[in-house]
This record gives sequence, structure tokens and C-alpha cells, in this order.
Amino acid sequence: MDNFTYCTPTKYVFGRGAELNAAAELKALGLGKVMVVYGGGSAVRSGLLGRVLENLDAFGIVHVELGGIEPNPTDPKVREGIDVCRREHIEGLLAVGGGSVIDTAKAIAAGVPYHGDFWDFWAGKATVEKALPVGVVLTIPAAGSEGSGNSVITLLDGLHKISLRTDYWLRPKFALLNPELTFTLPPAQTAAGIADMMAHIFERYFSPTQDVEITDRVAEGVLMTIIEEAPKVMARPDDYQARANIMWSGTLAHNGICGTGRKEDWVSHFMEHEISAVYGVTHGAGLAVMLPAFMTFMAHHAPAKGAHLARRVFGISEPDDTAAALAGITALKSFFGSLGLPLTFKELGIENPDIDLLVKKLHENKGEVIGGYYPLRVADTAAIYRLAL
Amino acid sequence: MDNFTYCTPTKYVFGRGAELNAAAELKALGLGKVMVVYGGGSAVRSGLLGRVLENLDAFGIVHVELGGIEPNPTDPKVREGIDVCRREHIEGLLAVGGGSVIDTAKAIAAGVPYHGDFWDFWAGKATVEKALPVGVVLTIPAAGSEGSGNSVITLLDGLHKISLRTDYWLRPKFALLNPELTFTLPPAQTAAGIADMMAHIFERYFSPTQDVEITDRVAEGVLMTIIEEAPKVMARPDDYQARANIMWSGTLAHNGICGTGRKEDWVSHFMEHEISAVYGVTHGAGLAVMLPAFMTFMAHHAPAKGAHLARRVFGISEPDDTAAALAGITALKSFFGSLGLPLTFKELGIENPDIDLLVKKLHENKGEVIGGYYPLRVADTAAIYRLAL
Repeated sequence: MDNFTYCTPTKYVFGRGAELNAAAELKALGLGKVMVVYGGGSAVRSGLLGRVLENLDAFGIVHVELGGIEPNPTDPKVREGIDVCRREHIEGLLAVGGGSVIDTAKAIAAGVPYHGDFWDFWAGKATVEKALPVGVVLTIPAAGSEGSGNSVITLLDGLHKISLRTDYWLRPKFALLNPELTFTLPPAQTAAGIADMMAHIFERYFSPTQDVEITDRVAEGVLMTIIEEAPKVMARPDDYQARANIMWSGTLAHNGICGTGRKEDWVSHFMEHEISAVYGVTHGAGLAVMLPAFMTFMAHHAPAKGAHLARRVFGISEPDDTAAALAGITALKSFFGSLGLPLTFKELGIENPDIDLLVKKLHENKGEVIGGYYPLRVADTAAIYRLAL
Repeated sequence: MDNFTYCTPTKYVFGRGAELNAAAELKALGLGKVMVVYGGGSAVRSGLLGRVLENLDAFGIVHVELGGIEPNPTDPKVREGIDVCRREHIEGLLAVGGGSVIDTAKAIAAGVPYHGDFWDFWAGKATVEKALPVGVVLTIPAAGSEGSGNSVITLLDGLHKISLRTDYWLRPKFALLNPELTFTLPPAQTAAGIADMMAHIFERYFSPTQDVEITDRVAEGVLMTIIEEAPKVMARPDDYQARANIMWSGTLAHNGICGTGRKEDWVSHFMEHEISAVYGVTHGAGLAVMLPAFMTFMAHHAPAKGAHLARRVFGISEPDDTAAALAGITALKSFFGSLGLPLTFKELGIENPDIDLLVKKLHENKGEVIGGYYPLRVADTAAIYRLAL
């Protein structure tokens, strides 16, 4: 086990009606004027946004709004938010939505007190040392941003989609999780969210660090829960218990508890970020394509962890590691397929992906050699993209 | 799944040399003068206390000492600590030790800013709404107090051993966890710690709340880790990797993650607290006796959860719930026995326990009906104590 530091100060309020704690939690943080960040129409149409704003009004919390955050959020909206926050002397942010909304709120939160350009943090030119407090009303269990210190933003100039990871500053102060808010998610979005949360675990599970049994076991437990509960939410979208299990799994998948004490990987995410930056696909759907491709490459180059996963999570009893890992991948693809997720570039709607471009951008953004589990160069990542054809 | 609020703000610094972060963490909290709380001789003899005090000196942190905390800590030491803290204008506490030391530090931390008697909190007459910050250097993985908001203190007058649980105020600000510090624990103490951490999970696992698959799976993962790693630390006390797995398991067992979304039980703990209050036995050893007795009673009255545990954690395939639960208990007893833990009052060194007295004190402290999983009255708890004869 490697040495580690772990701190998850986020206060989670989970259950029916959780969103109505927004004002009380903001008050407890001493915030009197906040920016409410949200996405497209669904939070408005469902009445959620109205309910939250009424809650703020009832407690006398002044608010300005920043709506219209798109999936795969980009830098112009962040800059707009930073400007408004500075002009209006905003003290904190409340994100009402999924990962794109939360990540935008976090980027604004980091940018407001910083004197340079907010992208400096994403470009690795500066470190976040201060941020406005962020609270969350979660509507999509997927990105895990409600409990993580991460934020993924795309710089439109050059389509650089980069994930910034902080240990502390970008973790939300509170996250309000009401599973009922996820009843109306379209099936494709529910399924993509499930692939995303599983990916967050796989990225931590494919680790070169030995003897981290406790973290493996916790990760396997969350994965088995997702695999068990996912068919229930697909079959009956208003199954509260299954939605609740999926929602909390999504948080645990990415708040760090599945990664303590070991080096992580993140290759599948890096490779998918290039796909969604260039082709604008849904992140989770892209991951459903890239994860089996990544694992297939690993089954032939470093099969140990894939075999362990296959035996522990998918009940594979093959004694040979490569055979076990491959059987696990078959089971994973079958599971993804059962949720209606794409398994190839073609099923993702990309007939002829420009693999050279994807590989070029990947290594431009992430360096010559990538991967925590197994070192990958241009020829390797190109091979992995081709496994997804 | 029940609604829940969950917040674990403790910053964990885990690994070799972790204790040398004490001064930096205290500084980061803005503390310039602290009380260092410790137990008997081992922290002194091993040189740990000296190393920590040197670390504080090097950073210019002024400190007073409160040593001599005994196992099953009592109120006089807490009162002494509160007096010293007030007189010396102490700003925070650093506990160097195991559960007894940490719990004493927490009780002092709650008592200093309170105008009444600190026992009011434990007696349920007042709620903690303020406390001095507490940091921890952990030497015994067992009580889980390094990550919990709990503190167990015994009031000498009447031998009332009571656990106070707070959601926030008594959670340590930071916990420094170096597995090397546990190499020199005597085997009996290592084993008792293992029983204690397993108990913290069982108390949350035996729950009447249905459909909390995610929390079950995480709890089972931590249990399976402990069962796998425990024989390694017994066989080779300086096995760093096994000690590290056990140490982090002990924290996860009790920081709340194994209890989210469900009603908890705590009967085995309540029943053991009466034994250790009256007979002064080691808490973990007492739990090794009470847990199988509790589970045996449940196998005959409410076998579902014990059967689930047996199947998931001990690989029992019995179709009948009672039979499965009983087979799981046999496996658990065999595991405890292999660690050299006692399984009966007699093996605990209590030839003729005064069961009437234990039952009387239990219900005096905890009410007429106890238990979150299954309601227990005097006749039931007496029967459970008798199952431990």
C-alpha cells in the first residue's frame, strides 16, 4: 500500500426532499448571496429549479442565475460566470444539475479569487489555493463531481478537454442527493451514467500497487452493487430503492474511497475525453466503448488485474489470467449491451474515427507516455482506439 | 434505504512516518498551544511520544502533557484534563494512542468550552455544540475513534460506561496513521482490536432497513479484508502490508461508511460495555464473546441478516436462513478462536458472571427495550448473556 492523504469534507444529505436543505446549508456556511448554476431545460421544466429558488428566497438568500450549461462544458461559460460573480460580489455557488453543471460551478469558484486566467489551473500553470464554496443539488448520478475535487472543462480553442484534480479546494461543501430527482432521466442518460461511475472505479482498480486488499474489496463492492441495481433502474425508472443505491454508488465511485493507497490509471478517461472533445458524444457512452478496448489490450499485456476483477466481480473461474480477463470483458460488454450502451465507435455514431488525430491530441495533452497501470506510447494507444472499431 | 446525512471531515494522513505531520497539521488549524494526551508506558518507551513532542517543538507549538490514560477511561481524568486546559488556555488536543486516549481527548475537547459538567453530554442532558479541535496519532487499530464522532467514557460513580455519538463535533480534524507503530502491539491486543473493528461493522450490518445493497457490499468488503489480513498480522507482527490493510479497515469500519442509509443495532456493544465496566476486561475480547451470543439469539429469532452475512462473507451455501446463520457463527467463532480470542465468559476470565447485575445496568443505561435490528427486553438480553456462558 502506498502512503496517502485522504480528506472528504463534503456533507452529504441523502434522501427524499434533500434539495430543500439548500438554503439551510448555504446559511450554515455563512453565505448570503450566491450564483445558482444550471443546465438546459429539464431542471426548469421539472419544477426543481423553481423549488430550489423558492427555498433560497424563503431564507433570504440573494441569488443570481447562470443557466444554459451544456454537456461537455466549455471555457466561455466559465468566463461569463466569473465575470458575473465578481461584478455581483457573489459569495458562493449552488450547482443544480449533473457533472457538467457542477464542474462549471467549480471552475467559476476557482477562477473568481484568482488574478490570472482560470485556465491556468487546467493547463497546469497554477495551483488552486482558494475557491468560493460550492454546494450541489445533484440530478444525474454519473460524474461523481458532487463528492470529488475534480472538474472537467473543454477549452474551445484547440478543443482541449482537461480534468483538473484537487485534493481539497474543489470538493463541494455539501451535496444534496434526492434519488427521486433521477426518476425522469432518459434511459440512455441513466445507462451512460452507470458506465461513467463504473469507469471511475476501474480507473482506480487498474493499479500497479500491490497489497491494497481493503481498497480492492471496497471497489468490488461498489461495482457489484451497480451491476445488481442497474437492471432495476432500467426496467423501472421510478424504483426508489434501486435509484438510491445507484446514486450513492456513483458518489462512492469517485470521492476517492476506491483509490486510497494506490497509484491510479485514468487511461480510459483520457482516451474518451479526446473522443467527446472532437465528436461531442456523451462521456459515459464513450467510456462504454473505451473501457472494454482498454481492458482487452491489458488482457494481452498485463492481465493480472483484469483477471482479479473478472474473478471477484463477474464470478469467472478461469485459472489462466488472460483467459479470465477476457471472460470478464465479455461479461462487462454483455452488461453494457443489456443497458443499451454502445460498444464500438460505430455504435457510438462515429463511422470513421480519425484515430491519428485522437492519438495526437491525447499525447499532446497528456504526454509521451501515459497510464498508471501500464505505460502506453503512441503505438499502444492507437492500438487501443482500433480495438474499439 | 433511509434518508441520511453523512460528513467525515477528518483528514487522514496514512503511511510510514505519518506521525511527523502532527505539527504541520496543528499549524494548519491555527493552533499554537495544545495538550498532548497519551496512555501508559508504550508510547513513551517506544520513543513515539518523544518524536512527536520534538516535532511540535521544532514547529514552535507549545504543549502541556496529560499522560496515564488507562484502558476503559474514566471521568476523573477527563475532569483533570478540562481543568488544565482551561488554566493553561489550551487551543486544541493531540491524542497519541488508541481508543481510550482519543476518547479521553474528545471528552476534554467537548468539556472545556461547556459551562456545565462534561458528563451532561454522556447522560443525554446536553448536546455538544462546540469543542476544541482534536488531532490523533493512532497506535492501536481497533476503536475507530480516529475517524468517528464517538467517545466512550465510564463514570466511576455507579460504573456507567456510556458511548456518546456526535455527527460532527467529536470527529478528529486529522488522524495520522502509520502502520509501523502497530508492529509492537501484543498479540492479544492485536486480536482484540480485530474483534472490535469487526463488531463496528456487524452493529451496522444487523439492520432492519431493507434495500441498502451499497452499504451491505462495502461492509462485506471491509469484513472480508479483515478476515484475510488478520492471520498475517498474527503470524508476522511486522508485516507492513497486512498491518496497513488492518489499520485502514479499522478506520472504515467505524467512520460511518458501513452504516449509511440504515438503522443500526449496537446491542453487542451495549452488552459488552456492561461487562467491561463491571469486570474491567478488554473491550475487544468482551466483544468476541458477545457477538456470537448475540448472533446465535438472532439466528433463532430473526435469521435473515445473519444468513446474508454467512453467505456473502463466509461462503456458506445453506438454503435455510437459520442453518446458514448458525453455520456463519461457527465460522466466526472458529476465526476468533484462531486469533486466540475468548469465546465465553469463562475464557474471558469471568467464572460466574452476575448476569442479573449486567442486565439491570444494561436496561438502566439503555432503556426497557434495546436494539435496532430486533427489539430486546430483559428476558432476551439475559438469554443472550447466558448464551455466552
